[in-house]
Amino acid sequence: MSTELKPNKLQLYNSLSRAKELFVPINSPNVGMYVCGPTVYGDAHLGHARPAIAFDLVFRYLKHLGYKVRYVRNITDVGHLENDADQGEDKIAKKARVEQLEPMEIAQFFSDRYLDNMDALNVLRPSIQPRASGHIPEQTEMVQSILDNGFAYESGGSVYFDVVKYNQKHHYGKLSGRNIEDTLENTRQLEGQHEKRDSVDFAIWKKAAPEHIMRWKSPWSDGFPGWHMECSAMSAKYLGTQFDIHGGGMDLRFPHHESEIAQSVAANGHDPVKYWMHNNMVTINGQKMGKSLGNFITLDEFFTGSHALLHQAYSPMTIRFFMLQAHYRSTLDFSNEALIAAQKGFEKLMKAMETLSKIKVSNQNDFDIKAWITASYEAIDDDFNSPILIAQLFEAVRMINLLHDGKAQIDAENLSLLVTSLHAFVFEILGLNSEASQSSQNDITAGLMQLLIELRQNAKTNKDWPTADLIRNRLTEIGIGIKDTKEGAVWEVL
Amino acid sequence: MSTELKPNKLQLYNSLSRAKELFVPINSPNVGMYVCGPTVYGDAHLGHARPAIAFDLVFRYLKHLGYKVRYVRNITDVGHLENDADQGEDKIAKKARVEQLEPMEIAQFFSDRYLDNMDALNVLRPSIQPRASGHIPEQTEMVQSILDNGFAYESGGSVYFDVVKYNQKHHYGKLSGRNIEDTLENTRQLEGQHEKRDSVDFAIWKKAAPEHIMRWKSPWSDGFPGWHMECSAMSAKYLGTQFDIHGGGMDLRFPHHESEIAQSVAANGHDPVKYWMHNNMVTINGQKMGKSLGNFITLDEFFTGSHALLHQAYSPMTIRFFMLQAHYRSTLDFSNEALIAAQKGFEKLMKAMETLSKIKVSNQNDFDIKAWITASYEAIDDDFNSPILIAQLFEAVRMINLLHDGKAQIDAENLSLLVTSLHAFVFEILGLNSEASQSSQNDITAGLMQLLIELRQNAKTNKDWPTADLIRNRLTEIGIGIKDTKEGAVWEVL
Repeated sequence: MSTELKPNKLQLYNSLSRAKELFVPINSPNVGMYVCGPTVYGDAHLGHARPAIAFDLVFRYLKHLGYKVRYVRNITDVGHLENDADQGEDKIAKKARVEQLEPMEIAQFFSDRYLDNMDALNVLRPSIQPRASGHIPEQTEMVQSILDNGFAYESGGSVYFDVVKYNQKHHYGKLSGRNIEDTLENTRQLEGQHEKRDSVDFAIWKKAAPEHIMRWKSPWSDGFPGWHMECSAMSAKYLGTQFDIHGGGMDLRFPHHESEIAQSVAANGHDPVKYWMHNNMVTINGQKMGKSLGNFITLDEFFTGSHALLHQAYSPMTIRFFMLQAHYRSTLDFSNEALIAAQKGFEKLMKAMETLSKIKVSNQNDFDIKAWITASYEAIDDDFNSPILIAQLFEAVRMINLLHDGKAQIDAENLSLLVTSLHAFVFEILGLNSEASQSSQNDITAGLMQLLIELRQNAKTNKDWPTADLIRNRLTEIGIGIKDTKEGAVWEVL
Repeated sequence: MSTELKPNKLQLYNSLSRAKELFVPINSPNVGMYVCGPTVYGDAHLGHARPAIAFDLVFRYLKHLGYKVRYVRNITDVGHLENDADQGEDKIAKKARVEQLEPMEIAQFFSDRYLDNMDALNVLRPSIQPRASGHIPEQTEMVQSILDNGFAYESGGSVYFDVVKYNQKHHYGKLSGRNIEDTLENTRQLEGQHEKRDSVDFAIWKKAAPEHIMRWKSPWSDGFPGWHMECSAMSAKYLGTQFDIHGGGMDLRFPHHESEIAQSVAANGHDPVKYWMHNNMVTINGQKMGKSLGNFITLDEFFTGSHALLHQAYSPMTIRFFMLQAHYRSTLDFSNEALIAAQKGFEKLMKAMETLSKIKVSNQNDFDIKAWITASYEAIDDDFNSPILIAQLFEAVRMINLLHDGKAQIDAENLSLLVTSLHAFVFEILGLNSEASQSSQNDITAGLMQLLIELRQNAKTNKDWPTADLIRNRLTEIGIGIKDTKEGAVWEVL
């Protein structure tokens, strides 16, 4: 493809401005991207696949456009103050105490399984996958900076971010659109709240309770960093204090990302992120699928079909295609029907990709492939609109089938453009891959054996014993046994 | 198998006592094991596979015996003082500066590749894989303890372990058998040595040069921990200050492991490890294969055959079997001849495992399988003597072939014992697995096609055109094309 067919006209929806903006990196051609990764105290479910695939698309497309992307996705292995409801609870340590295991052993176990799931989904590995537990000094240093700058206070060995004071100078709520008064009114009084000057304040360092396993020394107490701190500290360490893209699930916009902004502004004096991007939720019967809600289906359960709600197993590529068929900012409702439709659509697309290799060049040409390519780039350039890009791909499928059936013709230049761009869109950008090789291999063996059994039967009918014997003996050499049964000959690999 | 056939009579060679000792865990049934893992600034080579496979055997066998093993293998992602020759050099940071990359991005890249190689070799994932960069607080705390206890001193922002003073009270050299006088005489004068009280002292915290990228704050300087510190600090964190087994390559015995002992004794007052185990080296033309020597062949090169010294590709299981055919304390010399022999041996073993499933039970019995099992356990119990265990397996192969050929008989009880124990030894303990499915599938297709082409040729010779056409047309349906060339018919999957 010529370069003018790859226009860098990428517009992305910035959650901060609530508008689509032209993507202009801070230090082109380098792009820094940070995405909130999993908390590794349980198996990944469908909801975890959504941000992974959504930002994999971003990562892949930016690389396709020629950017040099450093993609950082963290692993949360430190239990954290997830929300007011379980303040002071360290989820991982809690599970570790129950199972009498080292928390890091559980974290390693589920981290490995998460990454296996991501490999199966053909999600490219991020450039850096920092662990929260591995960046305690960076976090305590940032807590100290916030204290030094007067936006936090120590209380009872913990350090709290002073949201009210911060909000006097800056705007706490700029990302989520909440205002602090609303937040104040809606905050419940809970355990540990007495240490805070204001109930809206949040911990950036938490003194560990005596039974709390995961803990580190700090100037304030033996404890652990507040949940929001890891992303602020690790993104700054690996991408700088100002970087291009920060992604994550929409449910992280408040309080997590809002607090990340406040922490970074308080520590470094400026906003950390140019473009904030948020994927929408996976729902099940209209409700967010989530661990805390107990309504989740794990990815392994999808891959094996081992969950009561699943009518069948769904391959990783079916899951990936299902996700990409929806725009990342739309909710995506789980249903067997939608997944089966995705499976069929994916198979149809893959079959067309195979057919494509057999299309013959003509002197005549019925299709304007350049226009098709332009429209396809317009789709993906429009805030990564993968469903429209996929609609474009099915337009190409239609063309391929017309060509294959001899109902249309294509010349060499257009065929070359079609092949190159389809491979780029399907495999490189959307990250789909053919899972068919093993099963098609089995299909071939079955087909060949069916033919050989028929030939042997014909030989027998014709009393051509040498041929019948040749077939049987050679199959034995190959390692295939034939047994004559009442229902005909059956075979097996010995 | 009955439990008396699994005697816990495991003897292992303790490098510390230089003798085989009965294995008695400190807190049975829990076992703590720490093994020095890779430095992730380059691809893993055959030398890296050796400790990984040697201690995978230990991990697997201890689990087989019923122990609850926590296996910690570190990832060295902080550049370190590797030896006097490159003192002050941070290998990772050096490469990062050259490539203008973030050191952690390189570390992540090679760490991912290392783990992929280990997966291919069927090396079980350790319970915890801590990164050195993720345990800076633990390391600085340990440095502080050593300082507090008077076994280290600060000089020029760095902290040095006072080997001479330590050796007055304890014994520096107990593991390696070196005495400090020899060490003193053999130590060259190098850059940075002027800060030390004695040339034999080693850095446990090193002040970073201005150009040094990887650095952390500490009470002494912005710098990084000495190389030996990470293993001492991380093993203590995850296994306690006294644990059962510490493993690694023989070349790490001095100065790395010797210094680990000294650091732990200096910080905690007692020896850290009950059993020290060291695997021997992989050699090439009699010389250690190593990155610093530049004579290494990477695992990927073995798997693909893409290195001038390799006559062919060697599968991960061939590499694994090759390694297990030698005792872990023997040197293992690379040669194509030895690898090809390993490949054939492995294939023979796997073929026998397949044949085993077809052995028929008899009322008579020619083999004493219990005696065979006892001898097999004696082999593995004798300091993990995998070559003798493999010899036992080939004794079983001989039995299987006699049984299959009808030249011997086995009764139900003995067959059951043989099947169960062989599966335990081959798959569970030695960690071999059959990788034949894909390649044998290709072999079957090739064999079937050869037969069909021959049948078609015969049909043509006999002017049996319907059969010749039937074959061609049905192959087209299956998706296989046949082309008649001067050299005969060739085929391809379309």
